[in-house]
Amino acid sequence: MQPDSIRDTLRKFVAERDWDQFHSSVNLAKSIAIEAAELLECFQWSDEGEAARIEEELADVLTYAYLLADKLGTTPEALIRKKLATTERKYPADLARGRSTKYDRL
Amino acid sequence: MQPDSIRDTLRKFVAERDWDQFHSSVNLAKSIAIEAAELLECFQWSDEGEAARIEEELADVLTYAYLLADKLGTTPEALIRKKLATTERKYPADLARGRSTKYDRL
Amino acid sequence: MQPDSIRDTLRKFVAERDWDQFHSSVNLAKSIAIEAAELLECFQWSDEGEAARIEEELADVLTYAYLLADKLGTTPEALIRKKLATTERKYPADLARGRSTKYDRL
Amino acid sequence: MQPDSIRDTLRKFVAERDWDQFHSSVNLAKSIAIEAAELLECFQWSDEGEAARIEEELADVLTYAYLLADKLGTTPEALIRKKLATTERKYPADLARGRSTKYDRL
Repeated sequence: MQPDSIRDTLRKFVAERDWDQFHSSVNLAKSIAIEAAELLECFQWSDEGEAARIEEELADVLTYAYLLADKLGTTPEALIRKKLATTERKYPADLARGRSTKYDRL
Repeated sequence: MQPDSIRDTLRKFVAERDWDQFHSSVNLAKSIAIEAAELLECFQWSDEGEAARIEEELADVLTYAYLLADKLGTTPEALIRKKLATTERKYPADLARGRSTKYDRL
Repeated sequence: MQPDSIRDTLRKFVAERDWDQFHSSVNLAKSIAIEAAELLECFQWSDEGEAARIEEELADVLTYAYLLADKLGTTPEALIRKKLATTERKYPADLARGRSTKYDRL
Repeated sequence: MQPDSIRDTLRKFVAERDWDQFHSSVNLAKSIAIEAAELLECFQWSDEGEAARIEEELADVLTYAYLLADKLGTTPEALIRKKLATTERKYPADLARGRSTKYDRL
């Protein structure tokens, strides 16, 4: 499999349906928030969710997140790696270890 | 680069900080929803957001989504591909072309 | 205090700042989702949140929700009462008692 | 009608179903975020939503917000008024007029 084949698969899926016209950045951002809440709904009344449903909703979040990354001309992996470098500076391992404290209170 | 190196990078980042104790599925789901709303905030009063900020917030959504996928014992790509197969059946290209109508009204 | 004084207080606050131009229905809906996630952030890593912070974030959700109700030409109380009548039919007390099951599975 | 009758109506509705056991603060916060996203879904692909649907989803947001206010021992109106006093200081009318700029950049 080629490294960017998932990107190409998604592009093809969207192109076949002529859906790119709906996929402005703001609409994709709304869609990510909507799907993220459907994922949260798996845990609305209990900390244990149903695995199959969690996977489906997480897939929806990821799909829109991939589409937005592509629209921005980048890849999910590049975005994660870049942000991780920032987070590493804000949360040095020896300071943040075992604590969920926000960086500005560390 | 190895295919799963981003997963290993994230695992190492979490392990170094002993943060896995905070990353229950429900907490990751909450985190994805929280970051998705921060992404949406880039577009709160305008359809045009600031590129650098959008990329940062999208990176946060993706990071927690990757962590949850890993916790579920799967990968983002596998989840997207599996869901895409379902979506393809719900939205046949010739029926859905150029329409944002929900599948149950198509 | 007059029954609708909170509505008038909010209208005056917005008018003094000439903010009505930003308060389209879609922008208010985005704002409610953004503030709801900030409320959720009080509980990101723990089921116990800090009372003062919860109250502030809940106030933000409510403020935007009141503004949207006013934009729709109705009141929060009217909306709640109307929906409650629907919910009462979907969740009859004797069927729903002590269960968090969604109505379509009751 | 008595001033707090909506609070009493909601309390009675919940008590009849024995649902208070599900209404921890964190669960109500999740529920508000979930309903806020359903409200946002009315505007997913367009800035114009369907009025009846918007009203229903806004009602759900408000219902959970009222329940959480009651759980915190306060009222929606008290919360809004208190926060408005803070916001007035952060956004003086003459400085904020006609601008959607965040207070820390004003």
